Amino acid sequence: MPTIRFLPHEKKIEVPDNQLLIRAALEAGVHINASCGGEGVCGKCRVIVEKGQVQDGISEKLSAEDLEKGYRLACQSKVIEDLEVRIPTESQIDTSVLNMQSTPRRRARIEETNLEELKEKGLFMPPVEKVYLELPEPTAQDNLADATRLVSFLKLKHDEHRLVADLPVIRKLPDVLRQDNFKITATLARPVHGGRKTRIINAQPGDTAGRNYAFAIDIGTTTVYGQLIDLVDGSVLAQYGDFNAQISYGEDVISRIVYAEKPGGLERLHDVVVGTINKVIQRCIRRARVDPDEISSITLAANTTMTQLFLKINPRFIRRSPYVPASTLYPPLNAAELGLELGDHVTALVYPAVSSYVGGDIVAGVMGSGMYRTDDLTLFMDIGTNAEIVIGNRDWLACAACSAGPAFEGGGIKFGMRATRGAVEDFSIDPSTWEPMLFTIGNVRPKGICGSGLIVMVATLFELGVIDNLGKFNRDLNTPRIRKNEGIYEYVLAWQDDSQIDRDVTLTEIDIENLIRAKGAMYSGCMTLLNEVGMGIGDIDRIILAGGFGSYVDLEKAMTIGLLPEIDADRVTFVGNGSLMGAKMSALTNRIRRDVVEVTKKMTNFELSETPSYMDNYVAALFLPHTDLNQFPRLKSRMQARKAAGHLNG
Amino acid sequence: MPTIRFLPHEKKIEVPDNQLLIRAALEAGVHINASCGGEGVCGKCRVIVEKGQVQDGISEKLSAEDLEKGYRLACQSKVIEDLEVRIPTESQIDTSVLNMQSTPRRRARIEETNLEELKEKGLFMPPVEKVYLELPEPTAQDNLADATRLVSFLKLKHDEHRLVADLPVIRKLPDVLRQDNFKITATLARPVHGGRKTRIINAQPGDTAGRNYAFAIDIGTTTVYGQLIDLVDGSVLAQYGDFNAQISYGEDVISRIVYAEKPGGLERLHDVVVGTINKVIQRCIRRARVDPDEISSITLAANTTMTQLFLKINPRFIRRSPYVPASTLYPPLNAAELGLELGDHVTALVYPAVSSYVGGDIVAGVMGSGMYRTDDLTLFMDIGTNAEIVIGNRDWLACAACSAGPAFEGGGIKFGMRATRGAVEDFSIDPSTWEPMLFTIGNVRPKGICGSGLIVMVATLFELGVIDNLGKFNRDLNTPRIRKNEGIYEYVLAWQDDSQIDRDVTLTEIDIENLIRAKGAMYSGCMTLLNEVGMGIGDIDRIILAGGFGSYVDLEKAMTIGLLPEIDADRVTFVGNGSLMGAKMSALTNRIRRDVVEVTKKMTNFELSETPSYMDNYVAALFLPHTDLNQFPRLKSRMQARKAAGHLNG
Repeated sequence: MPTIRFLPHEKKIEVPDNQLLIRAALEAGVHINASCGGEGVCGKCRVIVEKGQVQDGISEKLSAEDLEKGYRLACQSKVIEDLEVRIPTESQIDTSVLNMQSTPRRRARIEETNLEELKEKGLFMPPVEKVYLELPEPTAQDNLADATRLVSFLKLKHDEHRLVADLPVIRKLPDVLRQDNFKITATLARPVHGGRKTRIINAQPGDTAGRNYAFAIDIGTTTVYGQLIDLVDGSVLAQYGDFNAQISYGEDVISRIVYAEKPGGLERLHDVVVGTINKVIQRCIRRARVDPDEISSITLAANTTMTQLFLKINPRFIRRSPYVPASTLYPPLNAAELGLELGDHVTALVYPAVSSYVGGDIVAGVMGSGMYRTDDLTLFMDIGTNAEIVIGNRDWLACAACSAGPAFEGGGIKFGMRATRGAVEDFSIDPSTWEPMLFTIGNVRPKGICGSGLIVMVATLFELGVIDNLGKFNRDLNTPRIRKNEGIYEYVLAWQDDSQIDRDVTLTEIDIENLIRAKGAMYSGCMTLLNEVGMGIGDIDRIILAGGFGSYVDLEKAMTIGLLPEIDADRVTFVGNGSLMGAKMSALTNRIRRDVVEVTKKMTNFELSETPSYMDNYVAALFLPHTDLNQFPRLKSRMQARKAAGHLNG
Repeated sequence: MPTIRFLPHEKKIEVPDNQLLIRAALEAGVHINASCGGEGVCGKCRVIVEKGQVQDGISEKLSAEDLEKGYRLACQSKVIEDLEVRIPTESQIDTSVLNMQSTPRRRARIEETNLEELKEKGLFMPPVEKVYLELPEPTAQDNLADATRLVSFLKLKHDEHRLVADLPVIRKLPDVLRQDNFKITATLARPVHGGRKTRIINAQPGDTAGRNYAFAIDIGTTTVYGQLIDLVDGSVLAQYGDFNAQISYGEDVISRIVYAEKPGGLERLHDVVVGTINKVIQRCIRRARVDPDEISSITLAANTTMTQLFLKINPRFIRRSPYVPASTLYPPLNAAELGLELGDHVTALVYPAVSSYVGGDIVAGVMGSGMYRTDDLTLFMDIGTNAEIVIGNRDWLACAACSAGPAFEGGGIKFGMRATRGAVEDFSIDPSTWEPMLFTIGNVRPKGICGSGLIVMVATLFELGVIDNLGKFNRDLNTPRIRKNEGIYEYVLAWQDDSQIDRDVTLTEIDIENLIRAKGAMYSGCMTLLNEVGMGIGDIDRIILAGGFGSYVDLEKAMTIGLLPEIDADRVTFVGNGSLMGAKMSALTNRIRRDVVEVTKKMTNFELSETPSYMDNYVAALFLPHTDLNQFPRLKSRMQARKAAGHLNG
């Protein structure tokens, strides 16, 4: 890994080969003006490469003389060896401020399913197993029925008890047995509890025990993700995600419910999401090149509305007070009967929910993350189209859905957008000139702001005093980037020429207000749950983030705005798609299915709107970071230091 | 009940009002010549009514003078008051012989499901029950999911545990609950064993607990019978039988199996029998005028081939050595998925089998008759298209299918026919003139012989020495009715003019031979089973007869030919359609379903063709009644008495 020394800051950083120089600067806490998102258009990110060579970095924005002097565009330069890079005066700022500003970019540690741990603990026991058997052939003296022969053999030789063969297995068994001299592979579906029946769901001639696959599916309101899992070794053979085709019928769960209430609407939404799942299934099968007949199970997790639409259960009462779902538990179902393009024998396991707004996706996250098994008081947050929180440990669990609004996904933000190409996702500002350094997804000119970018901006602007703790711009700063437009104060992130759109890209006070409301809802949700069990924010040992959003968010910045409680970044983990992770875990270990019923019973659901303390907590959280700064001691001391250094404006 | 005194026999008998005089004579053991089956054609059954009046009995065969003297045709006269009736000389026979001959007609006592006993013992517990519930309505403080609310309430208020709601119930529950202010009736399907899940299979608005019905179905090779049962009080509301439409594809199970092996054959036979069952279901529903939605369960019993065809399981290996069925146990199935025209929630319970030729119909008979619960050593015989026997008690059970052939159903008999209109079903013979007295079903001129008639004839002919113990006619008797026709000896039952057909109706030596083989197979089957457990025929305490045949057979005559072991007629009961009875019992008490698995395990199946002693027993049984007359002591003493009286011919 090459090392870069930034001058005059005297900051060193190691970066991977081919890293863009501008991103290396950001990681090092070194500001370089840059407003075109890294497309090389604005030409502001000029740096002088004093030692070593970069790849590319040459642009028409640089004259032959500039190039001779070692000037390169940081956003176009790839690091291929050790370098010394000087930041020219136009980007230079007081190093004392820089030092204070340079909180390292800390993203949450990614936690993955620990397959080895499962295997060590003997928990690698998929709910559906295959067993290869060489049965004795029937004779005049031993003419047991075929199914009885199979059951007896499993009992005697494999210690399997309470077996029952499904009708389709009985139907095919006579021929399957005689196809390869009574050598067959039986597929067994385990019960949740020991005393119950083990179902024989399939029989195949010969030895197919080495080919046993499962699907794990997350049905999101926006996207459907699937994983094809090898049940023999636990590995993921293929993965695919696609937009939930229900999107054409409404962006969020409420509009889907409204559509489902129309004549034929429920059937339509059911068909459409089943279509998407089938597409995901087919793609994974094609990618992994497995025989579809060898797929034995499918586990699905989704929020309550998505679950009901998938199962063709009218969700109309989910959106009506007192918000009652049809069910929280679902029996094992036949996948083919639900319309899934899988073998007749495939069992579909659907994650149970807690309530109308804390669904199977959240339960799956709790199961997949293992928080229900630890002593640590853990805060689980899933920030997606809807935001849900779960707090607790092995002894108790409390949960709630927060009406955070869509700000984290770019909703309600003037230039808000999803985290796709052209979205500003990282940001730095020069505290003397108030010129920005922007990073966009895809390193193209900016066209909007995604949720994680918004958090970084607001946190940075707040910490440097560009906005106050109410989110209002400091009206006294001398920069054309802060202006009043149609009565609303805003900061220009990118002038029209540097953007992909026909206007300036800005961040407005209304955007900030929306973000504050969203983070306030989340934070006060946590406080309310903790208060209800007599605890406080300070008692939280661990944070688990789930949802597409969580992987990009800069932890320190999220704490700065008061979205997350201030805890050591090492204690924050990111599980990615918690719903998919939980679905996968259920496919790998039957133990989850036993635990999950207990866990859902344990998960006390709070309807925040019905919990009196919630509104007080919410109002107190409508500040940056919070009315009570003492809840954020690290930020408090940084702000005090900055104030002492005389750099805190406003 | 009027009393009739027959003269000169001095025999008295009480008969029900409107009984035909000729039948009263038969019951009293009084012979009257009669060969037209009771249609009044032959005019031979002239009797003199000396006291009292009969209704009808007048015929053109009687002159005015005859009528004046009191002559009537016995077959046309109905008994309406006390009578004295003289048998004229032409029908009179030596009274000493008559006295010996007159074994009373004893049919088996009919045993029916004892509902009161079930109720007393607390066993009236249908596998599917309805419970009316008034649930609390949800509030902001209590917003449990609808299914959870239902499950919790059943748990708290009705002590129901381990409940699981089926998906269709979850689908309808939100609307059903809100249709009548959370007052609903839930339908619960009980598990076989206590620790397992109780399924909630239906939910209806309001109180429908008083309307809960079940179907019990016997799928016979020839006929399908159904009963519609009220699960609230256990009564049978309607009953209907129809020919199994599979008959068009073959008379017996073997030809059905052959057809099922043709392309599309299995599907065709499945569809056709499902069609017949649906017809039976629809007829019963119409007759009882019940709402089809209130039918909660259906229990079916059938022989192994019929079961496999109904369940669309290829039966090809049933007819191939070593005669292996696909399965003996079937899980509870969804009736609608099987093609039955019943609600989606209806569970179909299919009786388990023992082997390829001892099927669910026999197991149902064993369960329905209760023989598996008694200390008495019981012989259960089902004589139908196929013949099966079960011997045992609460401690052990042995069973076998006998290749008896179709003689009992009229098959292989020159003038054999099913027990329908025109079949000779009872018979007496004048031991001096060898003139017969015939009774046909429907009292019409004879056209053939049914199984029970055949037994009476052969027994009567044997006991009077018209045939010997090999079934050969006494060639020395002076009567035109015994003759050689195309090389075969035969007895003319009805001359062409007295018959419905264009020929004389006869009983041939080949017919007798076939009957002897059939009864020999049954009897030697019993002996073999008993020998295998170290017991003998004499140990049998009780006989239970099942099958259409059993209700008509004259017990003493059946013992005379050696079909049944000689035991007190009081110890013989007739359960009718044992298969239907067992199906009904399962619909009434869930206990049967628990017991039946144990019982089928206990039922040791003997393949008689593979049991060495069977052939010896069979050869010994190819006599009337048997090589060893000592096994029939009552018959032996009658024959000795007759011999002493000098009346034994041959």
